[in-house]
Amino acid sequence: MARRTGRRPGNPETREAILAAAREAFAGKGYDGASIRAIATGAGVDPALVHHYFGTKDKLFLAAMQAPMDPAEIIDAVGEGDRDEVGVRFVRLFLRIWDGPGGAAGVAMLRSAVGTEWTARLFREFVVTQILRRAVPKLGLDDDEQGPLRVTLAASHMVGVALARYVIKVEPLASVPSEVIVAAVGPSVQRYLTGDLDLAAHLGDPPDRP
Amino acid sequence: MARRTGRRPGNPETREAILAAAREAFAGKGYDGASIRAIATGAGVDPALVHHYFGTKDKLFLAAMQAPMDPAEIIDAVGEGDRDEVGVRFVRLFLRIWDGPGGAAGVAMLRSAVGTEWTARLFREFVVTQILRRAVPKLGLDDDEQGPLRVTLAASHMVGVALARYVIKVEPLASVPSEVIVAAVGPSVQRYLTGDLDLAAHLGDPPDRP
Repeated sequence: MARRTGRRPGNPETREAILAAAREAFAGKGYDGASIRAIATGAGVDPALVHHYFGTKDKLFLAAMQAPMDPAEIIDAVGEGDRDEVGVRFVRLFLRIWDGPGGAAGVAMLRSAVGTEWTARLFREFVVTQILRRAVPKLGLDDDEQGPLRVTLAASHMVGVALARYVIKVEPLASVPSEVIVAAVGPSVQRYLTGDLDLAAHLGDPPDRP
Repeated sequence: MARRTGRRPGNPETREAILAAAREAFAGKGYDGASIRAIATGAGVDPALVHHYFGTKDKLFLAAMQAPMDPAEIIDAVGEGDRDEVGVRFVRLFLRIWDGPGGAAGVAMLRSAVGTEWTARLFREFVVTQILRRAVPKLGLDDDEQGPLRVTLAASHMVGVALARYVIKVEPLASVPSEVIVAAVGPSVQRYLTGDLDLAAHLGDPPDRP
């Protein structure tokens, strides 16, 4: 019998069974469609145990994704303060996490996300429920019909930077000081989040969309 | 015995043996360190056969990567014409390839690139030798000490867009018309390639770099 650790409650095998059932449910039914009850049934445990081990459904999802950080914390920190510096704040905080001890987990998460259709769907649910749904209101984009596009543009840019810097490790991007990337990329992210994207000609007439 | 096809010269098993030896050599020794002779030896064939099957070392590398396109063609097309529209041209051409029949191969290449340290190294060699080395002179950035950084910033952004749109498939980025992305992302890429990145404060004093 494996022993419990102080940090993570529960039998490691039971934890893993719950996490495996959670991944299957989140990828198969989506975040909203996956219930704690069904995940507990899939793992052969009582729903109360899932709550006891992982807390909320959000926390269970983060654990299932082995996420290096809680996006809610990043979004809260980026959302606070001068709106004209939201781009620079986002890039700086993002790089601080990836340059730090969470970076290895980030690389593992990115590798897993890209691996198969199944893991890609899991990651997509993660982006939509943990990032998009929170960032749009937090950044004051509720009334902006381009809000979700803005956030996905900013997020996709940063994922590309993470891929190039930490996974592919292309120079000079891989070893340039993080503040160089903050200075270079911050204004792009700022424009995506709060600037004029000049899309009226392309989005004005939905029936014309292919 | 497998039959030859009209399009690809040679015995499929011999072709595969050469491609496997090429991947190993390019990942292990880098593009410059990998010789056609050593690759032929690794595959147990005559070097002349490698040239006969694949042509140049560049073409062999593209075949080994299963690249959906030859970056040289994209870079040439992007490099021609008005310098103030290089960003828009790059994004438009990039999306045209990914939205077209080459997209599936692109997804496969990206999946492979991210998969392991070994394949990441292979992809890095691809970026450096097939993209960076060509794009820097073609875009007139030889005398710009930030030239390589500029190209990697632009490339990392587009890889992030490809990942979000074609692999993770996050909405609305996944199904928005390509011209929306051209309008939104083109100016960022333009700034990376030709604009003022305002990096003097961060790059002016190399000894201070961590």
